Amino acid sequence: MHTFRERRLQNFLQNYQHRARLVISCPDRPGIVAAVTSFLYEQGANIVESSQYSTDPEGGMFFLRIEFDAPVIVTRKADIEKAFAPIAETFQMNWRFRLHNDLQKLAIFVSKEEHCLLELLWEWQAGELLADIAVVISNHEYMRESVESIGIPYYCIPVTKERKGEAEEKQLALLNEYKIDTIVLARYMQILSPEFVAQFPARIINIHHSFLPAFVGARPYERAYERGVKLIGATSHYVTDDLDEGPIIEQDVARVDHRYHPEDLKRIGRIIEKTVLARALKWHLEDRVIIHQNKTIVFN
Amino acid sequence: MHTFRERRLQNFLQNYQHRARLVISCPDRPGIVAAVTSFLYEQGANIVESSQYSTDPEGGMFFLRIEFDAPVIVTRKADIEKAFAPIAETFQMNWRFRLHNDLQKLAIFVSKEEHCLLELLWEWQAGELLADIAVVISNHEYMRESVESIGIPYYCIPVTKERKGEAEEKQLALLNEYKIDTIVLARYMQILSPEFVAQFPARIINIHHSFLPAFVGARPYERAYERGVKLIGATSHYVTDDLDEGPIIEQDVARVDHRYHPEDLKRIGRIIEKTVLARALKWHLEDRVIIHQNKTIVFN
Amino acid sequence: MHTFRERRLQNFLQNYQHRARLVISCPDRPGIVAAVTSFLYEQGANIVESSQYSTDPEGGMFFLRIEFDAPVIVTRKADIEKAFAPIAETFQMNWRFRLHNDLQKLAIFVSKEEHCLLELLWEWQAGELLADIAVVISNHEYMRESVESIGIPYYCIPVTKERKGEAEEKQLALLNEYKIDTIVLARYMQILSPEFVAQFPARIINIHHSFLPAFVGARPYERAYERGVKLIGATSHYVTDDLDEGPIIEQDVARVDHRYHPEDLKRIGRIIEKTVLARALKWHLEDRVIIHQNKTIVFN
Amino acid sequence: MHTFRERRLQNFLQNYQHRARLVISCPDRPGIVAAVTSFLYEQGANIVESSQYSTDPEGGMFFLRIEFDAPVIVTRKADIEKAFAPIAETFQMNWRFRLHNDLQKLAIFVSKEEHCLLELLWEWQAGELLADIAVVISNHEYMRESVESIGIPYYCIPVTKERKGEAEEKQLALLNEYKIDTIVLARYMQILSPEFVAQFPARIINIHHSFLPAFVGARPYERAYERGVKLIGATSHYVTDDLDEGPIIEQDVARVDHRYHPEDLKRIGRIIEKTVLARALKWHLEDRVIIHQNKTIVFN
Repeated sequence: MHTFRERRLQNFLQNYQHRARLVISCPDRPGIVAAVTSFLYEQGANIVESSQYSTDPEGGMFFLRIEFDAPVIVTRKADIEKAFAPIAETFQMNWRFRLHNDLQKLAIFVSKEEHCLLELLWEWQAGELLADIAVVISNHEYMRESVESIGIPYYCIPVTKERKGEAEEKQLALLNEYKIDTIVLARYMQILSPEFVAQFPARIINIHHSFLPAFVGARPYERAYERGVKLIGATSHYVTDDLDEGPIIEQDVARVDHRYHPEDLKRIGRIIEKTVLARALKWHLEDRVIIHQNKTIVFN
Repeated sequence: MHTFRERRLQNFLQNYQHRARLVISCPDRPGIVAAVTSFLYEQGANIVESSQYSTDPEGGMFFLRIEFDAPVIVTRKADIEKAFAPIAETFQMNWRFRLHNDLQKLAIFVSKEEHCLLELLWEWQAGELLADIAVVISNHEYMRESVESIGIPYYCIPVTKERKGEAEEKQLALLNEYKIDTIVLARYMQILSPEFVAQFPARIINIHHSFLPAFVGARPYERAYERGVKLIGATSHYVTDDLDEGPIIEQDVARVDHRYHPEDLKRIGRIIEKTVLARALKWHLEDRVIIHQNKTIVFN
Repeated sequence: MHTFRERRLQNFLQNYQHRARLVISCPDRPGIVAAVTSFLYEQGANIVESSQYSTDPEGGMFFLRIEFDAPVIVTRKADIEKAFAPIAETFQMNWRFRLHNDLQKLAIFVSKEEHCLLELLWEWQAGELLADIAVVISNHEYMRESVESIGIPYYCIPVTKERKGEAEEKQLALLNEYKIDTIVLARYMQILSPEFVAQFPARIINIHHSFLPAFVGARPYERAYERGVKLIGATSHYVTDDLDEGPIIEQDVARVDHRYHPEDLKRIGRIIEKTVLARALKWHLEDRVIIHQNKTIVFN
Repeated sequence: MHTFRERRLQNFLQNYQHRARLVISCPDRPGIVAAVTSFLYEQGANIVESSQYSTDPEGGMFFLRIEFDAPVIVTRKADIEKAFAPIAETFQMNWRFRLHNDLQKLAIFVSKEEHCLLELLWEWQAGELLADIAVVISNHEYMRESVESIGIPYYCIPVTKERKGEAEEKQLALLNEYKIDTIVLARYMQILSPEFVAQFPARIINIHHSFLPAFVGARPYERAYERGVKLIGATSHYVTDDLDEGPIIEQDVARVDHRYHPEDLKRIGRIIEKTVLARALKWHLEDRVIIHQNKTIVFN
């Protein structure tokens, strides 16, 4: 299956070798787009996609994501950043240039449920998940074979209530070793400590197996069954200290009826979960998601 | 527009003049379907639709809804019911025969939001809502003209906190006068008293403007906005004493994103609300909804 | 019901009194966005929404739609257009400024099916269809009362095969009299002549009762029934000389199954048709739809 | 990953060891359900699910699928069939009893596109596809490793225009050898000969990468792109001699817009294809699909 991945990745890298993006957050005021696009024009960039959002034209925040082609960007990224700095300062911007081919390094955390991990592995093998899956970390041995058989390192770090801190230390050591950019909790059923979360702000993505804010917490399918809902859902969100309360990136639902027992809801739910997580992760990897006041702006 | 309604209603009544349905709930045990269908066969009935559900084949409850054509049913319904009684007793059935052409009498309650009422009126005029809208009751004058112009009586009964009981008395008098079978709360923003609800068990249908159990209570769209959900929804349910906790009949959702302000969510929500309410009401009117332990079995 | 419309329209006009939009098509090349946004900035405009699309960054066409707030635009639109002309010439632009409060004049054409017309009338009354429904034209008398009762002129112009030209002349006279911008064929079951269509290029919107290109032409629901499809749909498109071949603006589908007879498909289909048509029309009215090579770019 | 499959399959087989189903087609007339359910009652069967459909209560065809629990069925299936034969004859029935645990043997045909095969393999490993995947046959070597690594035999039989008959002979030999019940064309891009198809009537399931009947034949995504549709779809159907004209089992769609190039449509389409094929196959395997006049009745 590697051949798919390699072929598609090769295509991608070649097609987008001059592609980059610029993502900006700043207080809204007139002239931002004019200043940014004039700058890009002067660098010889051709804008291929542009998205913006203003929370309030008067006194709100402004968010901008621009994708552009510019041969110069690959070779002289640092120079361009330096040239852009004064504009950024004028408008008090948070900003970042990123090359399209600069793939993020992922760590996938998983427990016993395999479907989300397998979906990400399959999309990665198919060349559709444009990231570098650097490592899979689990508190069980279950998936080792599936993961190692395609050449990705797998670490089993058991987690017990008493020695959770110890486990997190080992995890953090691995995350540093592999220089991880983004952590994906692919149905990893453990709660991370605030200290752990603090080290990866807006860089840990979880999939919750309910349509939040319905059924926050444990056993959402059982509770959906008991309440007799007619749709079940899944929610992908950034992890914060508040359980299941982080900024929502994506949600979806599927129709169910009185005939579905909790086991059936779980079966249907697995398809929603893996699909929603994969979508959210892709948007994150393409810098399409901006967090603002515990909500997300998604430029998809 | 009356012409549509009359033409379609005429067609319907003629097409289905020999159609009836039998709805049964009883403890599950072998032989129920055989007994019921043998009985119907002996009456010369031809079954055209049959739905059943068992909560648990061993020791659970069994639910059955059969639609059939039988010329005899129109003229001798009472005789057939009498003949069926011994079978019903054997199996400890709750049961009811209803003629397809025996339309229910509806009262629609409404406040200031017009969309749900107008949808029901439009479907009724189009001959697609097979019921007799006997009366519209509101705590405001807003819709009088729309309702009266198509020949439906409209009563404005103002409701104040202090004199709620008085208002409910007037409402109940009207409901008796018009021999109402089912009450539809079409965005009627008042909470009914337990005494009122008790008079219409499983006969009051509400539309809540959120995807329950998310955002129970007031201002769901504002709270959906604040939480940053990516889908909003509506829920139609039977009214019980617990606010927004009654058995859910139907739900649906629509996709939204960061650009939608609360006003936009309300606008989108109106379309979901009216659609969901109309679907739930139709199933109820066709005896397709059975309540069991605060959940619904919907044979649709 | 007028009160809803007036209240919401009043709100709208006041909220958006300084809002305008600029829509541009031109050959793609670097510098367009910079030039346009710099110009708007110089006019004191604050961009609130911007969408763009390039068919091909190298040698393709470029499309841009910008919404902005600018107090000056209302009072000095002509001056601003004059000032923009040189930029437009430089980039060979097709372009247009339009004030948000400059509502288009609509003519709705209808035959015997009422649902699409009623949906548009209802949205218009609810203040959600921001246009001026100037006139309804039908080849039947059916809807006169519904339309006139809310104060919109209704003309019945019968159409026969032999005297179609005559009917179209009368229609054109009315369209001129009412200074119509856009024609909506709300299930108007007549085919317009090429001469008629030529007078309203990209300004006639039709709703076809199938998921095009499946079931082009007559009796789509009957053919969908015969083929046994599991989803039925509707398509809103601009009218061109080729029947059902014009640029598609919007489509949607609903699930059906073996139990649905053609009459049921029509009933379900009516809901899809009216929803799809209303969506397409709104996007058109907000200049969100651009036609390019018999396809549409929709900035929604 | 085998552990998942084995665990779930074990659960399944144990839970459903007394479960069987009876599927019937016959001319409609009163008394069928009564006769069948009385028979089942006499055998000590408890009905757990029952679905029926009549094309026309007067003179049409009648279809019935009953799932029931009956300890006797496992040990004395032949006796029960013998006892049922006279009833079947009375009503001119086509009929079949099947044990729930009597898994069908599948052959999956595949070419170069891997997504449908991998989805089926994944669902099979997860214990959610209740069948015995006996063999995978391809005209390429691409998937050998993926398939053999989980213990399923893989045969590469190259197909050329000139020697197609020869290839089909080899395929048929394998199908016989493995006693195949159902063939799944999981994006197998070859057209089977009428002779081949005739050997597996209603037992070959294909996935077509469009929303049929739109885009019958080759290159559907390219043609969808050219037409500018706003939804793309996939269709799973039984294979007959008419290309893409066989009875449709299931269809679904996904929303696209002007930004999607053919490559993007293919990417989105892959998700629809694999989902639709998996759903259709499951219904087929559970005898929920009945073919009638080139359409399907699906009791799902």
